[in-house]
Amino acid sequence: MKQIDGGITAVPGIQAAGIHAGIKKAELKDLAIIVTDAPAAAAGVFTKNSVTAAPVLVCRQHLSDSVAQAIIINSGNANACTGELGMSNAQRMASTTAEQLGIDENLVLVSSTGVIGQQLPIDKIENGIQIAANSLSAAGGADAAEAIMTTDTHPKSAAVEMEIDGKPVRIGGIAKGSGMIAPNMATMLSYLTTDANINSEMLQSALNRVVNNTYNLLTVDTDRSTNDTVIILTTANAENTEIVEAKGTHYETFCEGLQFVCTELVKMLARDGEGATKLVEVVVKHARNRGDAEKAARAVAESPLVKTAVFANDANWGRIMMAIGKSGAEFDPYQVDVLLADYVLVKNGMDAGYDEEKATQLFDNDPVRITIDLRAGDAEITMWTCDYSYDYIRINADYRT
Amino acid sequence: MKQIDGGITAVPGIQAAGIHAGIKKAELKDLAIIVTDAPAAAAGVFTKNSVTAAPVLVCRQHLSDSVAQAIIINSGNANACTGELGMSNAQRMASTTAEQLGIDENLVLVSSTGVIGQQLPIDKIENGIQIAANSLSAAGGADAAEAIMTTDTHPKSAAVEMEIDGKPVRIGGIAKGSGMIAPNMATMLSYLTTDANINSEMLQSALNRVVNNTYNLLTVDTDRSTNDTVIILTTANAENTEIVEAKGTHYETFCEGLQFVCTELVKMLARDGEGATKLVEVVVKHARNRGDAEKAARAVAESPLVKTAVFANDANWGRIMMAIGKSGAEFDPYQVDVLLADYVLVKNGMDAGYDEEKATQLFDNDPVRITIDLRAGDAEITMWTCDYSYDYIRINADYRT
Repeated sequence: MKQIDGGITAVPGIQAAGIHAGIKKAELKDLAIIVTDAPAAAAGVFTKNSVTAAPVLVCRQHLSDSVAQAIIINSGNANACTGELGMSNAQRMASTTAEQLGIDENLVLVSSTGVIGQQLPIDKIENGIQIAANSLSAAGGADAAEAIMTTDTHPKSAAVEMEIDGKPVRIGGIAKGSGMIAPNMATMLSYLTTDANINSEMLQSALNRVVNNTYNLLTVDTDRSTNDTVIILTTANAENTEIVEAKGTHYETFCEGLQFVCTELVKMLARDGEGATKLVEVVVKHARNRGDAEKAARAVAESPLVKTAVFANDANWGRIMMAIGKSGAEFDPYQVDVLLADYVLVKNGMDAGYDEEKATQLFDNDPVRITIDLRAGDAEITMWTCDYSYDYIRINADYRT
Repeated sequence: MKQIDGGITAVPGIQAAGIHAGIKKAELKDLAIIVTDAPAAAAGVFTKNSVTAAPVLVCRQHLSDSVAQAIIINSGNANACTGELGMSNAQRMASTTAEQLGIDENLVLVSSTGVIGQQLPIDKIENGIQIAANSLSAAGGADAAEAIMTTDTHPKSAAVEMEIDGKPVRIGGIAKGSGMIAPNMATMLSYLTTDANINSEMLQSALNRVVNNTYNLLTVDTDRSTNDTVIILTTANAENTEIVEAKGTHYETFCEGLQFVCTELVKMLARDGEGATKLVEVVVKHARNRGDAEKAARAVAESPLVKTAVFANDANWGRIMMAIGKSGAEFDPYQVDVLLADYVLVKNGMDAGYDEEKATQLFDNDPVRITIDLRAGDAEITMWTCDYSYDYIRINADYRT
């Protein structure tokens, strides 16, 4: 497996574009389109927030047959909490895109991200869809990655090439969100493409598995958007024998490639978390089971006290012990070790007699890795987050004003 | 029922003191003692954090017979994650206090609050206990309230007098903590006294009920300390007939008084949350049941995005809808109303067409009250929190450095 350039359009048979439709005030790109040459097997994972945005409801309908050919995405407005008019506007985004491409509207998936509770400027968007459809290009991945940004400070894309069944297979992806789980400009969105020959059921199976080990283990600020979406499309043009079972080398290799692309995107999301100055990896080892590992890791990764300490380069391990203690995971506090990078701060639940100055320097590492060994079992997990800085407050306090 | 002065020593038969023992560097008070004239019925509620501080373990042991006569409390050091030496030091605090007062050491309860993971300066504390025991006074409540402070910006006390069974009964209390759930200087501590004639079982029952409706509905930053403690002692000197059942007017009146004192203390804690500029009350109405009401209220009260919006006087209701949507509470998004004070921001899950300028002014209210009507049932709950400001980051990033 090797990393390659091109992001979402690294995969042959995928075209994309990103343009300014006028939803955002400045001349920023705010409308993206991704298209496959022919109807493609598709799979998606969507927000579990019960306040669900209209485009997510449209995606669920249009994905019921696991086939799609285009994705239309606007930034600057989330089309959430917008009632019947919001639903009708989301459907109009699909039908206008379908019309421009000469395909059935059930083949079009729709996403929106931005402010909650305002109606879409649907005329501007319909006009923009026409421009975007005419700008489609096999080199358009970078523009699409830019057009889906909200409070992101830079676009996020990744791609790999690997061999399955002796044949070259590619996976590309883009993502946005200054949080899993971001602010007003809500929403984590990610789009993935591949040419792997894999049926839609296995595509969904691989996506579920990888999302569970990547996007679902990313946290910036504990909040969960009304619009979160991960979608994968495959052209199935690679020459490997079709993958039809969730086991065996071919399926595993595909999952590894997908895991790699998604992990790269997740790290980019955490590093670009609102106000973040550091990417933080929280590793929990030897937990009783996966549930306990995730509880402990999440409690540390979501603790405002841990995150402010990381911002301050402060090896304040008492806060880490507090966080795992409140997590509900089962362990003996006097069996726990805590490491910063490979440096032991806590041995058997107590101060290991570390050097504060040396510990402080380890916060220059990228990523900052905090490892917690619970010595309670065999389960291990890695979560990704960032620190809390003054800018987190500034960005979220000033956002609308 | 009327509010009275005197805090913890407003109750006849209670003496207290607060002195500087030398645990904190500056000449700040750091050791408090509270004593009843005779052994008293006692009840306590302690942290559920599985990383439990040594003094909490000592309290649980010494409260097994529901009788106590003294509480010794140090600030500046939490005596948590300190192993066997920590346990032995907590026990020495009890035995030294017992010796000074000439009582059995099982009658002494112990609390500590401050940095996690360092051993207590036990010689200074033992010396301080001697000074504190010699400073006991029926006017010492204010000094005790001051001596238990850590990052608090001011001491917190409250007291009431009411009639039970036609006889005057008093309840007094003090508390500390810049969070339920505060930082490095961990810990919410609260001590309550009364002269109500009530048996220890009913005292525990009333305490559990009131803690569940007050301290457990307070959140500053979601973190839970290793040392959280609420203790109540009664001299039982009031002349009401002994309360022996968890029902009837007398028990209910006592609970009302206790609820009042604890609510006052909880509001002081939230208003003094780290970096707080505003006290926020989150009211959830017409939830399906109490569990759903608490889930929805907690999701709003703990959302960093809601808290930064409150700091910015921004009526950003999309973040409130997002928070209740992720909470797990069951409701129809298009039945929800959201009010700021009595001003309707959201009607039936959508923008009510409110005036931004008017909404902004409502953030000058104290408290800022956010009401969410789920129209899904009959349950209602109020939670208390504060906003997130730049100072939250400053205080927690700079704390140890």
